[in-house]
Amino acid sequence: LSSNPKRDYTASRGEYLTAEILARYLGYTFVDPAWCICFDENGQLNMAMTIRTIRASLLPLKHAVIAGFYGADMAGKIHTFERGGSDITGSLVACALGADLYENWTDVSGLYAADPRIVDHPETVSHMSYRELRTLSYMGASVLHSDAVLSASEMEIPINIRNTNRPEDPGTMIVRHLPSGVVKNPVTGVSGRKGMSVIQIEKVMVSDGSGFSALMLDILKKRALPFEYCLTGIDSITLVIRSDLLDSCKDDLFEEIRETLNPDFIGLREKQSLIAVTGEKATEASDANVQVLERLTKEDIEISTINQGAGKLNLLIGVPEERYEDAIRAIYDLRQNMTRRI
Amino acid sequence: LSSNPKRDYTASRGEYLTAEILARYLGYTFVDPAWCICFDENGQLNMAMTIRTIRASLLPLKHAVIAGFYGADMAGKIHTFERGGSDITGSLVACALGADLYENWTDVSGLYAADPRIVDHPETVSHMSYRELRTLSYMGASVLHSDAVLSASEMEIPINIRNTNRPEDPGTMIVRHLPSGVVKNPVTGVSGRKGMSVIQIEKVMVSDGSGFSALMLDILKKRALPFEYCLTGIDSITLVIRSDLLDSCKDDLFEEIRETLNPDFIGLREKQSLIAVTGEKATEASDANVQVLERLTKEDIEISTINQGAGKLNLLIGVPEERYEDAIRAIYDLRQNMTRRI
Repeated sequence: LSSNPKRDYTASRGEYLTAEILARYLGYTFVDPAWCICFDENGQLNMAMTIRTIRASLLPLKHAVIAGFYGADMAGKIHTFERGGSDITGSLVACALGADLYENWTDVSGLYAADPRIVDHPETVSHMSYRELRTLSYMGASVLHSDAVLSASEMEIPINIRNTNRPEDPGTMIVRHLPSGVVKNPVTGVSGRKGMSVIQIEKVMVSDGSGFSALMLDILKKRALPFEYCLTGIDSITLVIRSDLLDSCKDDLFEEIRETLNPDFIGLREKQSLIAVTGEKATEASDANVQVLERLTKEDIEISTINQGAGKLNLLIGVPEERYEDAIRAIYDLRQNMTRRI
Repeated sequence: LSSNPKRDYTASRGEYLTAEILARYLGYTFVDPAWCICFDENGQLNMAMTIRTIRASLLPLKHAVIAGFYGADMAGKIHTFERGGSDITGSLVACALGADLYENWTDVSGLYAADPRIVDHPETVSHMSYRELRTLSYMGASVLHSDAVLSASEMEIPINIRNTNRPEDPGTMIVRHLPSGVVKNPVTGVSGRKGMSVIQIEKVMVSDGSGFSALMLDILKKRALPFEYCLTGIDSITLVIRSDLLDSCKDDLFEEIRETLNPDFIGLREKQSLIAVTGEKATEASDANVQVLERLTKEDIEISTINQGAGKLNLLIGVPEERYEDAIRAIYDLRQNMTRRI
């Protein structure tokens, strides 16, 4: 978050004026978020105070227009949220008022089932869960700010992503549990990222309770080096790390791993990509993930790592970067031919 | 290791006498391991001293018979290895002398591709790597003591498991790299264990470098609670732990996880089993693992977790305990119909 009041003040004036003009045009009351979106002097949102002040400002009103993305501290100095902050303002208002629905009007007709830069005219997903949205956002779909999703999901307020340019489109509805009767594709969406490195560490008797994996993750934690995922196996650990983060510390890190863990083998595969196939699954046998793996094999795409946790929400797979687009297209094509279930 | 010299002395006399009788029958020199398998007074093997003394004892001889599973400390007190210790003695002798081959004569004609208690007359594997053997041993195949494999693999001495009752069988040859020309099934063997518990922990923004997974593994390390494997995903961690180890500390552990990590959700699935499908893979695309998943899906067996690390040596999957035998049989059946490669 920025804590530069002067810059933030300047940045907020366009939003302020636009909202005031819109309010006058509609004949609604204009509400300045400087009154009710409460920051502290360091630019951190005070959530509890914000909830109370939004209620105080808006509950007496029948209609209101509130400006986005900024607020103010006790001294009245303006602070802004980071990019995408108007989503947060909208979500805060919806949460504070216990809204039935948070409509977020943007420039797309909802969330795509795949990256439109890779797949031609991908389908818009009609319904998805907060968890599914979080995964897709984490992997790069940037329709909605993640903090906005977080607060709405905590309050279980449905979010509807709508397109200002095509108001007739129903958009995407984001909820905790899908309403009954909604026909659901087993694969909600496919997303991913290139620029991944896969580290493979082997050591005899890793899985003996000596905490080899814990030591490995401690090394990463001390360096504040995040990893995409970690798989431990028999005598082996696999780590997927963003190459841009790894490259600056690779030699150091490998040296530390060698000294601390004395592994039998360290391998590094670069130019890998990570693909998440996302879809809430029933607990019973579901073969959608297996179908995905089958399809990639048929396309002769090497699958370097496979990771499906007990939640079954995501199938995470590693494929070589050069086949990333092929893999996304193949999975999307498979998705479009999958049997939907109610 | 036992450190009870009196009991160990008694236990070793049968082996001592048998070896001495065999030596006389063959006309070979009898070598008492009390001279050359060197323990310290606590019953720990002194490896370096043992290597030197074995060489000193055996290099002058053309043929010798050495008794198994015991040795002695400096004071001459007898100490024994744990169960399976004669494998260790044999491996130590092979390593000390830099043998071309370590033949281990036992009561089976080698390692089976699947558990013979589940699969009728499973195939004996003709060749496998040390790594494959380690996996199969870890998962329950107990033909050879793991320390014996470890020292032989470090010295790259091939191990040949042979059957005393069927000396005409070639047995299993265990090597670092398969000799060229050997026809290899992509699945060397399938093994597994019942009695597993799967813990699923969810928390928004796990993968942000804050070390959530590291904290989780630290909790297990502090408790010296070993886990079979750990998968981290987006917002989730999956841990597979032996139920007998978990049961004694489950409530405590979950309480600590809740307090330390404040997760959004903790789930526990009991009566799970863990299956390892083992086979050295080429780096290029290999679809054997995908075929296994396909087959289990066709048999309507739920796959709760999938774990294939970058080494691709093992595909580790979780299936409900009640379908464990079905799964092993299905994978073995698939294996028998797989295309072998040279």
